[in-house]
Amino acid sequence: MHAYRSHTCAELTAADVGQTVRLSGWVNRVRDHGGILFIDLRDHYGITQVLCDPDSAAFADVEKVRSEWCVRIDGEVKARDPELVNAKLPTGEVEVFIREIEVLGAAKELPLMVFGDQEYPEETRLKYRYLDLRREAMQENMKLRSDVVASMRKRMWDKAFREYQTPIITASSPEGARDFLVPSRLHPGKFYALPQAPQQFKQLIMVSGYDKYFQIAPCFRDEDPRADRSPTDFYQLDLEMSFVEQQDVFDTIAPVLAGVFEEFAGGRKVDAPDAWPQISYRDAALWYGTDKPDLRNPIKMQVVSDHFRDSGFAIFAKLLEQDGTEIRAIPAPGGGSRKFCDRMNAFAQKEGLPGMGYIFWRDQGAGLEAAGPLAKNIGPERTEAIRQQLGLGLGDAAFFLGGKPKTFEGVAGKARTVIGDELGLTDKDRFAFAWIVDFPIYEKDAETGKIDFEHNPFSMPQGGMDALNGDPLDVLGYQYDLACNGYELVSGAIRNHKPEIMFKAFELAGYGKDEVEKRFGGMVNAFQYGAPPHGGCAAGIDRIVMLLADEANIREVIMFPMNQRAEDLMMDAPSEPLNEQLRELRLRVLPPES
Amino acid sequence: MHAYRSHTCAELTAADVGQTVRLSGWVNRVRDHGGILFIDLRDHYGITQVLCDPDSAAFADVEKVRSEWCVRIDGEVKARDPELVNAKLPTGEVEVFIREIEVLGAAKELPLMVFGDQEYPEETRLKYRYLDLRREAMQENMKLRSDVVASMRKRMWDKAFREYQTPIITASSPEGARDFLVPSRLHPGKFYALPQAPQQFKQLIMVSGYDKYFQIAPCFRDEDPRADRSPTDFYQLDLEMSFVEQQDVFDTIAPVLAGVFEEFAGGRKVDAPDAWPQISYRDAALWYGTDKPDLRNPIKMQVVSDHFRDSGFAIFAKLLEQDGTEIRAIPAPGGGSRKFCDRMNAFAQKEGLPGMGYIFWRDQGAGLEAAGPLAKNIGPERTEAIRQQLGLGLGDAAFFLGGKPKTFEGVAGKARTVIGDELGLTDKDRFAFAWIVDFPIYEKDAETGKIDFEHNPFSMPQGGMDALNGDPLDVLGYQYDLACNGYELVSGAIRNHKPEIMFKAFELAGYGKDEVEKRFGGMVNAFQYGAPPHGGCAAGIDRIVMLLADEANIREVIMFPMNQRAEDLMMDAPSEPLNEQLRELRLRVLPPES
Repeated sequence: MHAYRSHTCAELTAADVGQTVRLSGWVNRVRDHGGILFIDLRDHYGITQVLCDPDSAAFADVEKVRSEWCVRIDGEVKARDPELVNAKLPTGEVEVFIREIEVLGAAKELPLMVFGDQEYPEETRLKYRYLDLRREAMQENMKLRSDVVASMRKRMWDKAFREYQTPIITASSPEGARDFLVPSRLHPGKFYALPQAPQQFKQLIMVSGYDKYFQIAPCFRDEDPRADRSPTDFYQLDLEMSFVEQQDVFDTIAPVLAGVFEEFAGGRKVDAPDAWPQISYRDAALWYGTDKPDLRNPIKMQVVSDHFRDSGFAIFAKLLEQDGTEIRAIPAPGGGSRKFCDRMNAFAQKEGLPGMGYIFWRDQGAGLEAAGPLAKNIGPERTEAIRQQLGLGLGDAAFFLGGKPKTFEGVAGKARTVIGDELGLTDKDRFAFAWIVDFPIYEKDAETGKIDFEHNPFSMPQGGMDALNGDPLDVLGYQYDLACNGYELVSGAIRNHKPEIMFKAFELAGYGKDEVEKRFGGMVNAFQYGAPPHGGCAAGIDRIVMLLADEANIREVIMFPMNQRAEDLMMDAPSEPLNEQLRELRLRVLPPES
Repeated sequence: MHAYRSHTCAELTAADVGQTVRLSGWVNRVRDHGGILFIDLRDHYGITQVLCDPDSAAFADVEKVRSEWCVRIDGEVKARDPELVNAKLPTGEVEVFIREIEVLGAAKELPLMVFGDQEYPEETRLKYRYLDLRREAMQENMKLRSDVVASMRKRMWDKAFREYQTPIITASSPEGARDFLVPSRLHPGKFYALPQAPQQFKQLIMVSGYDKYFQIAPCFRDEDPRADRSPTDFYQLDLEMSFVEQQDVFDTIAPVLAGVFEEFAGGRKVDAPDAWPQISYRDAALWYGTDKPDLRNPIKMQVVSDHFRDSGFAIFAKLLEQDGTEIRAIPAPGGGSRKFCDRMNAFAQKEGLPGMGYIFWRDQGAGLEAAGPLAKNIGPERTEAIRQQLGLGLGDAAFFLGGKPKTFEGVAGKARTVIGDELGLTDKDRFAFAWIVDFPIYEKDAETGKIDFEHNPFSMPQGGMDALNGDPLDVLGYQYDLACNGYELVSGAIRNHKPEIMFKAFELAGYGKDEVEKRFGGMVNAFQYGAPPHGGCAAGIDRIVMLLADEANIREVIMFPMNQRAEDLMMDAPSEPLNEQLRELRLRVLPPES
């Protein structure tokens, strides 16, 4: 017999009754029923009930074991009495009478219970992650993560992509965050950087003629932690293709992701990829107040400025006299009560706006009546026109926000989410996807007025060189995101592979040729030796798993995450280096005040 | 029609004759045959011959293109004349008459030709890696690497292992090399380390109850570069299992590796895993002079001390009077000529030994005769006894080395390799594997006399706690390597999962409890909460691909390797950091003299 087990803890069934078996696992729970000790013995695969009565020679040893001790038992499989069969457990028809027990690993008093659903502070969970990870929910999350990544790989292989590994200790590859640096011992004073993404390398792979690349790629960004972002390393499904246009990239990645979601949705609805809308960045801002819309929520905002121009509602009428202002409506089907409207108005105020005007439609016996202060101010005709534009009716409401869109779009987007949630309009059991396209290449810094790249500087402008000769802020890129349920899951672009267009694009953002060559020399040089048109994207794996696991925090789907201060309390990282290490690197740590 | 291609450059056959097609790719070669321009158009998949005659409207444009320009052509597929069919090319029956050509990416004058087999200095190849990678041999190597890794994954999944990703920016996990450090911005003065291997994390995953883990894991060791070692990051097939003994690990990984080798051996013989011998570390040193023996070479060294004790060969006879000395023989079947023996003797001298004595057996008409100075000194009886022990005969030779084995074993091993190669004994078309087992846990530093761990400190001593109460140098570990063709491909161990045995093992190497808790606190703490017995191993992916690709340098199987000085000349890494970066990290670089 094997030294540790003849079966896993999920295998024994009625067919094994009478056999002598050996099991190893952890003591999930010990119960004493009338002097007989029952242990739920747990391993990665399942639970088997094992037991020992006081007559057994092993009893004294069994009596000593506690929760989470790791033990090996030998014993005989017996059928449970029919009334004691546990139908929920695959092994629920049997139990094993312990003949011998060996303690493989004892456990001290537990700082965190594995069995049960007691909640613990995150710091405790992370410090004792090895116990936390034994809990059923974590086991499921980690298995899910592993299976999702495996499924991605298989799907990419099926599409004739090969995985190529790119360097990790390398040169800076900026994606808008800070680099993690790695001091060089062989070249003291010089530093490597960890890649924020394999962006430059995957483009170089295209220049090298490999046609289709993907990688489950570790990425490194020194960013302040957030619930949906790891402060150190995280993983992307990174892909790049040559000789493609934007639609080719969509047609490649969409079925991969849809397939993964369908495989692991567990009955939740997954929108079919040919129904994923393509929404321009501008429309997304207008309709949903964000470039990561949650399309499970059917609410679509609309411009209703004309109804308020020169109307009796002075605040909006005056606003509209200024350039660049708009009034937008958030329709709220089913939200037609003063109580609800007031709550939403209060929400907008809490978010820093003066409030949201509203109209709601009710019937107090005299037919459809538009209620709320706004309706009174603008009069019945305009109110009715608004109702008709928004397609609302009895029991519905609409909220109104005005000003320069940038000042209220964000809050409007949040209000849309809250309204959708509160009115039960948002289908929680669905994954709804949308391509967001036509991102502007440049943005103007609100404070400095400086033009800079909106995202990374490697995207091909729509219209090529010609487009760069007009107003930079009008230039759209072949650059796209995929939004799902309010998260950005994918980001990508058709790349700018023409050196002359690239230099011009950088020039508009204030980067001279020298600086471009210094910062992106590897890639810019490469483009001068026969670069193919190419493009691709990267999908955030941690977020995808988070959505599938129905978790709100990325740390629930990462085996050993850092805490919110980018520390690993279990492993004690970061920590003080040895003097010898600093000496070899020729580094000195300066005191805080300098 | 697609913007860039209707077919790849490997697809067109006689069946496509008459079709108008669109191809994109690189100009592999342009030839002018009687005014007609022939281009071998190359993409990732193959080559198609396209051509243009002076009557064509496209001729003027086609005339401009040069090697490695990236172009798109439209044209008509025509059958080649039967005598011009190229049977070596899948597309060799057809050619495409160019109707239109578009330059997608022009190329400057090339520092490195892609077509042909001209050799370039490594620095040129690495600086222009994107051109080097276009060469056929590199494309094949990179595809092989990708396919090998994919095959490993599939085989591990088939064995019910899941891949779990472990942190990269983390705490030190020493494996005998220097750590790469990563300064923390949020905690200035503190540093993360990049893992030398996911050793501690994979053991924690076992403590967390995941049963079977694997990972194609990036590892980071700040080591001086070598032909078979990357100076920065490299990849391992890393695996770990719970509730296993040594043989279980062998039975898991051996078929995976054998399967991978068989899949990609391209006709070379792969020893079947059930025939892989298990050789103790001590026997390997004796028989092969190394713990990474090349078993394609049938030569096995033997101890022949007794034949020299008190013999007429004074040097050996005297040597043997000292404690711990031995005389060992390298049999050399077919090496029986003075010329060969002298050359091997010279080889040993070049390697720093006084030389190798030898005997060879010839027939100069009077039957079998033992020749060489040694034979004379020890006389015919002893010579014949040696011949019989070694199983040698006419036309064979034997070489002899004496002293304390550690002083000559290395050279003996090299001599064995050279003898095997020169005599054609080593079967080059074969992958020969051997498990090396029973490694000592400790070694004594030759200079300081200090006892330290021979490998990593995490292996279970054979005999457990009892064994640690004897002479540390006698303690063997459940620790093993897999050697293949003279390389170490795999290294692993059954781990020491018992805290008390671990502390004791560290104590013998001079590490107090405090220091162990400080350096390996995460793992040692975890072991106190119900640790299962576990073990595993890691296989070096770069080396496996190197062997399969029949390359002698690891840089031939890595997409973007560093050069021998750990620099990336293409990307300019490492490089000077920005002052702002150093300030954020509160670091100062000291001048060289300090």
